[in-house]
Amino acid sequence: MTDVAIVGVGCTKMDEHWTKSLRDLSTEAGALAVKDAGLDGKDIQALYVGNMSSGRFIGQEHLAALAADQAGLIPIPATRCEAACASGSLAFRKACLAIKSGEYDIIMAAGGEKMTDIKGPEAIAALMGAADQEWESAIGLTFTGLYALMARAYMNTYGLTRDELSQVPIKNHFHGLKNPLAQFRFEVTAEQVARSAMIADPLRLLDCSPITDGAAAVILVSDRVADRFKNPIWVKGSGQASGTLALHDRPSLTEIPATQIAAKRAYDQAGVGPQDIEVAEVHDCFSIEEILAYEDLGFAPKGKGKDLLLNKDTWIGGRLPVNTDGGLKLGHPVGATGIKQLIEIVRQLRGDAYNQVKDPRIGLTHNIGGTGATALVHILGKER
Amino acid sequence: MTDVAIVGVGCTKMDEHWTKSLRDLSTEAGALAVKDAGLDGKDIQALYVGNMSSGRFIGQEHLAALAADQAGLIPIPATRCEAACASGSLAFRKACLAIKSGEYDIIMAAGGEKMTDIKGPEAIAALMGAADQEWESAIGLTFTGLYALMARAYMNTYGLTRDELSQVPIKNHFHGLKNPLAQFRFEVTAEQVARSAMIADPLRLLDCSPITDGAAAVILVSDRVADRFKNPIWVKGSGQASGTLALHDRPSLTEIPATQIAAKRAYDQAGVGPQDIEVAEVHDCFSIEEILAYEDLGFAPKGKGKDLLLNKDTWIGGRLPVNTDGGLKLGHPVGATGIKQLIEIVRQLRGDAYNQVKDPRIGLTHNIGGTGATALVHILGKER
Repeated sequence: MTDVAIVGVGCTKMDEHWTKSLRDLSTEAGALAVKDAGLDGKDIQALYVGNMSSGRFIGQEHLAALAADQAGLIPIPATRCEAACASGSLAFRKACLAIKSGEYDIIMAAGGEKMTDIKGPEAIAALMGAADQEWESAIGLTFTGLYALMARAYMNTYGLTRDELSQVPIKNHFHGLKNPLAQFRFEVTAEQVARSAMIADPLRLLDCSPITDGAAAVILVSDRVADRFKNPIWVKGSGQASGTLALHDRPSLTEIPATQIAAKRAYDQAGVGPQDIEVAEVHDCFSIEEILAYEDLGFAPKGKGKDLLLNKDTWIGGRLPVNTDGGLKLGHPVGATGIKQLIEIVRQLRGDAYNQVKDPRIGLTHNIGGTGATALVHILGKER
Repeated sequence: MTDVAIVGVGCTKMDEHWTKSLRDLSTEAGALAVKDAGLDGKDIQALYVGNMSSGRFIGQEHLAALAADQAGLIPIPATRCEAACASGSLAFRKACLAIKSGEYDIIMAAGGEKMTDIKGPEAIAALMGAADQEWESAIGLTFTGLYALMARAYMNTYGLTRDELSQVPIKNHFHGLKNPLAQFRFEVTAEQVARSAMIADPLRLLDCSPITDGAAAVILVSDRVADRFKNPIWVKGSGQASGTLALHDRPSLTEIPATQIAAKRAYDQAGVGPQDIEVAEVHDCFSIEEILAYEDLGFAPKGKGKDLLLNKDTWIGGRLPVNTDGGLKLGHPVGATGIKQLIEIVRQLRGDAYNQVKDPRIGLTHNIGGTGATALVHILGKER
């Protein structure tokens, strides 16, 4: 079986990019990744692009071919993958499988989203394309509303308080302070979170990831060529699973089965368990989801996720720092997010992260689409 | 290297399906394919879905997870692939690579599009998502307009006449007469084509593929399990290439380089040449494109594509029948089209097509996105 390594990374600032189009952003990220790998564009054999909804955000489908065109990569095969907010990780996983198929040795996997070109309410409607259009969107639910249902159920079942939930954005904003690519670089206090505008009870403004423009790219290579590159970071495990699109079809609102299944597959493939993970990026689109992820990934027993926050385990300096770049809270250009997460773990394992964890050897990324109808978990390692 | 075979096919009627949603259509096609393969849904290990623009057509992204959900396939991995009108073939090719990676033995690759839920002008705008939004859509071009530019350039360069161009829809409507799944089952004459409404000079209504709802699915298996199935049809070659999104960036309007490159890759992989192809499905979204495809695929020298029509070579009964199910002219649900083409070639090689070619052993499909910014060519064979 072919092994796959990441040998180059590139990411734009997460921001409202009023003067850059999606083609500009994706070319910027791609060029950075190619340069980081010490390659030239002509070395890239295939392009995979994760994007959720460019059709609605900017009136443009056929995005992978456009990205290849704009970056001068024609005529290489260009493939867009979509699974809502998990589109980036999905493109990455498909690129891994393409290398494992034996057909390619060097692939670029990228993700991007330009979300600010349409008005706020239109963006909210576009994002609801990730939920069940017939059963959720049509009755007026928003994504904050869906996660609010999950947060309320969790608080009722496990006794999570407002101030405990606030530890998620407090930690992630603190982590993001050092990240020059973060969209919002300021600390928040429990009082600020608790007094921020109510969006969907119990979730407040500072519980929510923002609307962001951005792009990210990585270069993947096969083990056949990996020794040409310095500091390859290896893909040890990759898991993908699906769940019901509609939240009401799930047996429980306080866990996401697709995450559990994707994690098991990734752990099994990597031959490790949750106890072996030293740094992780998890999908904190809304505060509650970071706590659910702790439990679904096996970092904490059911109902005990908050302990990792209260004990500072998942803060930088703790035993398992999570979202050391600030996570989705500090920017969530949906199609780019999964790739951005992988980049943070690559940087941690290389030893050049903005919030560097001390010498980690194994890291994990967790990226979901919608309320968890798609989940992808990747485990990266310093050693092959 | 793992070999891949198709062992089940299923397709809905190409139609305006006013009483069926996309989830209904995709489940219908998937269930037919599973039954055709003699399998049960629980045997399917992964799902790949080709769809161009469900976000704009029906307000729904995250379509592969929805299809898995609706079909009871959860929690298998579900991946949507998009390359405009080539999305179906793209999903198929990614499913082939996933099997070649060694991770799966049985995958469903499907495609679907529900195009009639929005008004005509909105559908035209959505389809322009396949072109370059900044340089083509924004100045008011439509897809018929883009292909009209190609048709006019070809007519001027190679002396193609109106009545010669009309041979494409005349042949394909004749072929479609026998296809119970075709959207429009009637013959057309040269006079009818020449007098049909002008859409974008020189292309008239009967030069254009219709707006269609439909879904199609195939079951792919690895050679490790293929002997469990009767009559497997083998994927001998698969090629994918990209071109510029905008037509004005191409060196010529009368050929599509991405088709030429994808075809070369597929021929090389299959170890065959254009002279070996006995039946083909090519992308006749507008009449002119079938003639360009003949030439780009190597079936005819440059400028001589029309001879294959005038000599009846590409009619049923000729030496290389093309679009024996009626082609895109008889229904073009964009995301489904690539899969529908593969199904027709599988049926031809099995010997149970509606317009059966006499005992073909090698067939080809050709599917492009936009004006050819993506091209995919697949070669199928009766023998491994």
